[in-house]
Amino acid sequence: MAIKIGKRTIGLENRPSIISYGSIVGKKEHEGPIGHEFDQFITDSFFGQKSFEKAESQLQKTAVETALKKANLSPENIDKIFAGDLLNQCIGSSFGLREFGIPFIGLYGACSTMALSTALASIFVDCGAAENAIAVTSSHFCSAERQYRFPLNYGSQRTPTAQWTVTGSGALIISKAEHKPYIDKITFGEIEDYDITDVNNMGAAMAPSACSTLKNFFEDTNTTPEDYDVIYTGDLGSVGTLLLYELMEREGYDLKCRHADCGLLIYDNEGQDAHAGGSGCGCSASILASFIMHRFESGDFKNILFMSTGALLSPTSSFQGESIPGVSHLINIKI
Amino acid sequence: MAIKIGKRTIGLENRPSIISYGSIVGKKEHEGPIGHEFDQFITDSFFGQKSFEKAESQLQKTAVETALKKANLSPENIDKIFAGDLLNQCIGSSFGLREFGIPFIGLYGACSTMALSTALASIFVDCGAAENAIAVTSSHFCSAERQYRFPLNYGSQRTPTAQWTVTGSGALIISKAEHKPYIDKITFGEIEDYDITDVNNMGAAMAPSACSTLKNFFEDTNTTPEDYDVIYTGDLGSVGTLLLYELMEREGYDLKCRHADCGLLIYDNEGQDAHAGGSGCGCSASILASFIMHRFESGDFKNILFMSTGALLSPTSSFQGESIPGVSHLINIKI
Repeated sequence: MAIKIGKRTIGLENRPSIISYGSIVGKKEHEGPIGHEFDQFITDSFFGQKSFEKAESQLQKTAVETALKKANLSPENIDKIFAGDLLNQCIGSSFGLREFGIPFIGLYGACSTMALSTALASIFVDCGAAENAIAVTSSHFCSAERQYRFPLNYGSQRTPTAQWTVTGSGALIISKAEHKPYIDKITFGEIEDYDITDVNNMGAAMAPSACSTLKNFFEDTNTTPEDYDVIYTGDLGSVGTLLLYELMEREGYDLKCRHADCGLLIYDNEGQDAHAGGSGCGCSASILASFIMHRFESGDFKNILFMSTGALLSPTSSFQGESIPGVSHLINIKI
Repeated sequence: MAIKIGKRTIGLENRPSIISYGSIVGKKEHEGPIGHEFDQFITDSFFGQKSFEKAESQLQKTAVETALKKANLSPENIDKIFAGDLLNQCIGSSFGLREFGIPFIGLYGACSTMALSTALASIFVDCGAAENAIAVTSSHFCSAERQYRFPLNYGSQRTPTAQWTVTGSGALIISKAEHKPYIDKITFGEIEDYDITDVNNMGAAMAPSACSTLKNFFEDTNTTPEDYDVIYTGDLGSVGTLLLYELMEREGYDLKCRHADCGLLIYDNEGQDAHAGGSGCGCSASILASFIMHRFESGDFKNILFMSTGALLSPTSSFQGESIPGVSHLINIKI
């Protein structure tokens, strides 16, 4: 059974565990400061396919295959797959995963999807609705630019607050098998909209939702940032991170002492021209399924928070003058 | 706890119940054969908004407000909202629901989303992760045509196998409060791809997944179509329905005796020029949250299957020559 803790947090009783993980990234991510952490990397943006979108599907398929292989499991051993991406109609997932024959639960939470998929997979395993479940997401710089901004061929200039969509995918296998680390608590986020309309400033659009979910979690669990080894956010980047610090300070929490942002880990922002940092569903996913899991294995981490942050915009909504709502989902991973 | 039944089916022990529901449709749906069943209808496609997309968000918001009002609940009483639609980046849901302040779980299953959202809400309530949860989806003829086909102003001609996207939304409130009817079993679907590439023939693309999910459910539960009052599919339309009968017959099941398709109920296909029938996330949602629930209330129904059917295509994937995978999720509703 799941237990409601406070207003918004869910406690899991049966310790759904991360028994395996797989990651794959692009060339730029491989050349970044944590490039050696990922299982695989591609040097060709097309990954042998005919389009960037098909390449993204291939990334997701490869991340899942890697996680399965490491756990010595086959698709028949998996009860459910929770997946999503940034592409219209989530084709990164549906086309990437169609051959596995695993019941498919499609998600859309923009860049918050990795925490969302892991949270749902954990609840399913915890309550007995699945024995083994996979959580996976992906993004691709070239498919995202074409869809949200401009085709790369246009050579558009990026603003200083703009972030660089990560080419990559990360997959976790969550299982009832006793294994460390496990998902202990979950806080699903509310949609927060502070009327940000600049589509080149995702960090500012997402920071309010990150603050809201973190505040709910700390209040529900009666804990503070100091109680955790690290608090990871998904892809707030440099702009969103500073805003989050400010918003959390107003709520009485000093986040700086424990915080790291996946979007600020993946590139050397100046040397690699990534501007405000990395972003995309594949950013927090590939880092969770490599860098973070490695630190649990080495014993560096015992208790962390992982919160992916999502901007729920669409090119259509922005053309129609809408602001950009944000949503952030949080999981507490422990040994 | 949830119990795994057979290979793919999940049984719920705590009888998560549908305690309230709300529906709203457009003018054409209101003028159809079951038009009197819906709570509300709009006569202006813009619903007082400046775009079809904003109108769709308004539909979803209204369906939720209606369900809340009928149950005498406010948004603070709701733990989670599970929502999705057909628009890119699911903006029908994120913009329609942002003001409620309810933790938001965004879903994408194309037209299968209403069964998906209801299934997830039921599992959350069953396992204690939520006391009250909402499941809601929407679609809008004009926003769907603009996005998937052509802007209406082009006056494009529709093919005989084409379906008409329903303008409408339906919302359910699922609760642990003991109340009839309740969700007893769930089967999440696998992605099935029979290499259909005709984007004007969604029925054919979805029928294989409908067959696969139904077959899994019947095998897991050791039941046959005759054991249920009615088996509803979401929006197979006239073409997909005949294909499903044929596929099920090959598996040894006679579906005809018990089957109804929401896409064939909502319009007078000839008189209303709907061709092969209705479709869209709002089709099965608005019918479940009205027509079907009314028959449970009157005592006509005691045990039904409700399976929404989704075609996981995107205009981009079709332009790139991809086929159309389908996915269908099933819930068993009982008194």
